[in-house]
Amino acid sequence: MTETLTAILDWGTSALRATLIAADGRVLDRRESKSGGIQYVEDGNFEAALFRLIGDWFDAHGPFPVAACGMITSRSGWVEVPYVDAPAGVAELAAGARRITLQNGAKMTFLPGMRDPAARPFPDVMRGEETQIVGFGLARDRTLVLPGTHSKWARIEHGRIASFQTFATGEIFALLTRHSFIAKAPDPVPGSTPVWQAFDRAARFAASDDPGAKALLAAFFSARSGLLAGALQPGDIFDYVSGLLIGSEFRQARAAGWLHPGEAIGIIGNQVMNERYGRVAALFGLTVEPGPDEAAMLGVRIIAETPKQDKQS
Amino acid sequence: MTETLTAILDWGTSALRATLIAADGRVLDRRESKSGGIQYVEDGNFEAALFRLIGDWFDAHGPFPVAACGMITSRSGWVEVPYVDAPAGVAELAAGARRITLQNGAKMTFLPGMRDPAARPFPDVMRGEETQIVGFGLARDRTLVLPGTHSKWARIEHGRIASFQTFATGEIFALLTRHSFIAKAPDPVPGSTPVWQAFDRAARFAASDDPGAKALLAAFFSARSGLLAGALQPGDIFDYVSGLLIGSEFRQARAAGWLHPGEAIGIIGNQVMNERYGRVAALFGLTVEPGPDEAAMLGVRIIAETPKQDKQS
Repeated sequence: MTETLTAILDWGTSALRATLIAADGRVLDRRESKSGGIQYVEDGNFEAALFRLIGDWFDAHGPFPVAACGMITSRSGWVEVPYVDAPAGVAELAAGARRITLQNGAKMTFLPGMRDPAARPFPDVMRGEETQIVGFGLARDRTLVLPGTHSKWARIEHGRIASFQTFATGEIFALLTRHSFIAKAPDPVPGSTPVWQAFDRAARFAASDDPGAKALLAAFFSARSGLLAGALQPGDIFDYVSGLLIGSEFRQARAAGWLHPGEAIGIIGNQVMNERYGRVAALFGLTVEPGPDEAAMLGVRIIAETPKQDKQS
Repeated sequence: MTETLTAILDWGTSALRATLIAADGRVLDRRESKSGGIQYVEDGNFEAALFRLIGDWFDAHGPFPVAACGMITSRSGWVEVPYVDAPAGVAELAAGARRITLQNGAKMTFLPGMRDPAARPFPDVMRGEETQIVGFGLARDRTLVLPGTHSKWARIEHGRIASFQTFATGEIFALLTRHSFIAKAPDPVPGSTPVWQAFDRAARFAASDDPGAKALLAAFFSARSGLLAGALQPGDIFDYVSGLLIGSEFRQARAAGWLHPGEAIGIIGNQVMNERYGRVAALFGLTVEPGPDEAAMLGVRIIAETPKQDKQS
């Protein structure tokens, strides 16, 4: 039996992903199970689902600790963990974690999501992204963007996550390219190079002083009017809409106060999204501070391994 | 045979609507045919489709004139009519019309749509809405909004349609309420009263000075976060999203320069949309100038009955 290993679980609605890491952070093994996704687990028997995926790790190494984040900590998951309110740092997130002991004696930690009670018009929420932010590092005051279906913009101040806001950019992109009349576009062949000319053209428009750039509901229609005018080709639409939306996300984030002149911006996403967001950041005059690889895993470890203590008085 | 009657055709992709009117504008009869919609007409035999719907009107009254607008004047229609460029008034629209003689000797006029070559990033287009604007009246300088799947904002100046811009408000509304994760909502029972409290709450937020109101991509998510926070109920979402979108349309139209302080605004839509747009106009401090009933029909008559002449030099 050893305490030098840890399993990190990214346990969501549609899949369970497990990573076995050594004390120095090296990844020793990875597993993924669709049948472990919350929606597929029968009768709430989450422990059985976990052992089906990583039982042999325990057999080989004994009951090492496990840390989980994602929807597994929501009401529909295994152990519901209340949101921790912003501002919050590692200590508050660790204090909000819930711990149980598995049947084999292993200690399992469920990490909390975060809520921003100051967000308008309603409190905003995230569950999982806070681990990426912690993994990025809270040492310097920074604005971070985490691209996604529901992108998060977050502000780090005084070593804590001070505030955050959700932008529905990725979901609007999917709606427009899959279901709309104005911008329906086939998914590009996986791995193909984006049509950067179309992407940049739209992103530059969104970043410009043109009065039309202030009206996103009107700019959406430019995918259609560009096609009718012969200025865009059908193969341009996917990346044109991507550039328009990400450019508008930065424009609106600036208007909502997220950009701080002279500061670099952190971008934490996959390689594809980091490239798109990085191109737009440059259009807005921002330098990009890259995050560490595996920011989420790093953040989970940092929070899970922080001793639970009373809040400082 | 008489020239005192006119048939006005609103001939679109999915339906053909015909109205028989007397010289004084009285409506004598109305017909509608789904099978006359452009997409259902076989082999381009539009004249046969027209006679199937209103042949008996000709039998009764002789070959009176017919005027048509809508997608029937597009490339996929019967007679393609090139767009007339803004700025344009009744004379330019009449000059752009195409006339043919039907087999029974009736004169038929196809009205042009309009293009705004100054729109950014690409020229904007409309086909049909310009007849509603002409029906509203071009006498006074005014901004008009025509609610719809693709709303139009148009500026009347010096007796002509000076410019216009398409806002995809209605389409985004449909995408969000039908297909999105964040704001999926069942259609309300037809004829039921809107949840005005939810509509007004969202519209007021969109009109406010709150930094979040400047970020529509973030505000979209409030339909979801409001539900999670218990501040919105499932039955609120449809009208909350409607208020958020129409409020944002006005906000963005103002930012794009469409609102002129001290002026009334014209709203030309159906009764349901006029009420929604009127409530939001009041939030933006605007008085509403109602348009005439049957603005489109009135506009078609005005354009179709204007003698074709050379542009003034």
